[in-house]
Amino acid sequence: MEKFIGSQTIQFECPPHILGASSIVGPKEGEGLLKDYFDLILEDALWGEETWEKAESKILKETIHLAIKNAGIAIDDVRYVFSGDLLNQLIASSFAIRSLNKPFFGLFGACSTMGESLILAAMTVEGGFAKYCVASTSSHYCSAEKQFRYPLEFGNQRPPTATWTVTGSGAVVVGNHGQGPVITHVTPGRIIDLGVKDPMNMGAAMAPAAADTIVTHLKDTNRKPSDYDMIATGDLGSVGKELALELVKKQGYDIEQVYTDCGVEIYESDKQDTHAGGSGCGCSAVTLTGYLLKSMKAKRYNRILFIPTGALLSTTSANEGESIPGIAHGVVLENIE
Amino acid sequence: MEKFIGSQTIQFECPPHILGASSIVGPKEGEGLLKDYFDLILEDALWGEETWEKAESKILKETIHLAIKNAGIAIDDVRYVFSGDLLNQLIASSFAIRSLNKPFFGLFGACSTMGESLILAAMTVEGGFAKYCVASTSSHYCSAEKQFRYPLEFGNQRPPTATWTVTGSGAVVVGNHGQGPVITHVTPGRIIDLGVKDPMNMGAAMAPAAADTIVTHLKDTNRKPSDYDMIATGDLGSVGKELALELVKKQGYDIEQVYTDCGVEIYESDKQDTHAGGSGCGCSAVTLTGYLLKSMKAKRYNRILFIPTGALLSTTSANEGESIPGIAHGVVLENIE
Repeated sequence: MEKFIGSQTIQFECPPHILGASSIVGPKEGEGLLKDYFDLILEDALWGEETWEKAESKILKETIHLAIKNAGIAIDDVRYVFSGDLLNQLIASSFAIRSLNKPFFGLFGACSTMGESLILAAMTVEGGFAKYCVASTSSHYCSAEKQFRYPLEFGNQRPPTATWTVTGSGAVVVGNHGQGPVITHVTPGRIIDLGVKDPMNMGAAMAPAAADTIVTHLKDTNRKPSDYDMIATGDLGSVGKELALELVKKQGYDIEQVYTDCGVEIYESDKQDTHAGGSGCGCSAVTLTGYLLKSMKAKRYNRILFIPTGALLSTTSANEGESIPGIAHGVVLENIE
Repeated sequence: MEKFIGSQTIQFECPPHILGASSIVGPKEGEGLLKDYFDLILEDALWGEETWEKAESKILKETIHLAIKNAGIAIDDVRYVFSGDLLNQLIASSFAIRSLNKPFFGLFGACSTMGESLILAAMTVEGGFAKYCVASTSSHYCSAEKQFRYPLEFGNQRPPTATWTVTGSGAVVVGNHGQGPVITHVTPGRIIDLGVKDPMNMGAAMAPAAADTIVTHLKDTNRKPSDYDMIATGDLGSVGKELALELVKKQGYDIEQVYTDCGVEIYESDKQDTHAGGSGCGCSAVTLTGYLLKSMKAKRYNRILFIPTGALLSTTSANEGESIPGIAHGVVLENIE
């Protein structure tokens, strides 16, 4: 049976459920606008570990365990784990998942990874390949800055277009039956590159990909923006959000009434010195598993188009003069009860 | 309908076909034992590009185009592309796939990526989510040495346990009907880490994962080694191959009669100075799309268990004292005509 519609979208016949979710964040995120929604706020971003990388890995591991607990299942019930992160060779994920003893699909979609992992977990469950899968991701401000930009000790100045990598992890358990919102559609995204080369303006690099996935999704499903209670991109921040809004409008869709960006929601940017907002795989992941899913549970929102956005930035390609391609993956979450 | 059997394996109800495949390799691989099986042998590993990374990206892009042509379909027929490589942030893949204008799932499984991409492409097609998907990967000796070990100009000595990263790319088109061998089962692998820390002995780091996936696959399917014409691991090389054989034997299975390793097959190691053999994502990918699939077409082999193996090595984690976890993904290919 064919489940694909339009050019990129999948419409599930038996929409899989999000049975449980979890979020663990760092101290800064715990002082932000969404602080009341997170499951655990760390007092210290190292969490007793010796390195930032090991700390990120621990955060991801504990977040996965918490999601499994929140779903009311046992680790043994989980069949496959889909995860990725920003660190070279996905070391946050591979060391976190090593101890789980479960088959692992390593993913890299930059900050769009929560979308990529959700899509593949949902396809796996709906295709009959597993009863329960975990989809997860993480990021850590300190490990990301060290790898992609400057050593923290250097204390570089950040332009107003820069975003702040979220320290945190989000995980969900996707299952083929049970309680919780369902995933009705997914729209995996294309790589879009309009030539932005500034790693301090990732919002601009990702906005065209976000706009492309939003417009493609609406066309594929023959829906209009008002069919959604919320359209939430991943981590464009305030600069990228405005660009995405404009790019979508140019293609004939006005999403302003329902549109927000997780990177804009997470911090109190004027007070927290986070400039254009939050970013990183963890940004959309903890906003989803904290704010969005808990708001859906409270029936404040009943149908959300969630679109994590990724900037495929590499220091190697950037040093060789390449631009920063963007990608964005769309996932429709809906309350059906 | 549930399609999972045992602890990790998926048995497809409607096994998807490999409709077309392709391989492009560098000059050294073109002088190796499998030279007659490759579609294109480059005279120069830079292939007219300015950097090793751009060369790898070009090799991958052209390999994908060739696989689509060999499958007898058009690029427009491809719905999703699954790809990954060894380079940080998958720049070989993302820049290769940027111009294809197709939804992209970025994967990282180190040198197991051909297995990961094949599994996900097969699940996507068999689940009814697409008619045609591309699964691909690449590696390049020069970009990999630069990133993981030493600058080429340094001319470091290589111990006998070291393997040689294959310059090359393999791609396949997976479809839900048509000619070509089918994928009947897949066994996604777990992360196995027995504490090996030597990046010059990746075969030892990966052998336990290879053995785990082989044994799990045989148990899950209730098959014996002789049910296969060949069991081929990805890139253990001569050192890892012996270890895998021994580890599998300890668990009660003797695979010696049907067992080989792509890293052992690809080079004439004593003449080509490649020590323990070939490695890299490209190693199993070009051995599959060159040697294995062409041998299946000639009916020399009719049922193969293909197990790409990955060492989740990162310079960051290695520098922080961590071991090198391994992973291996199993895919069963079968002639049904």
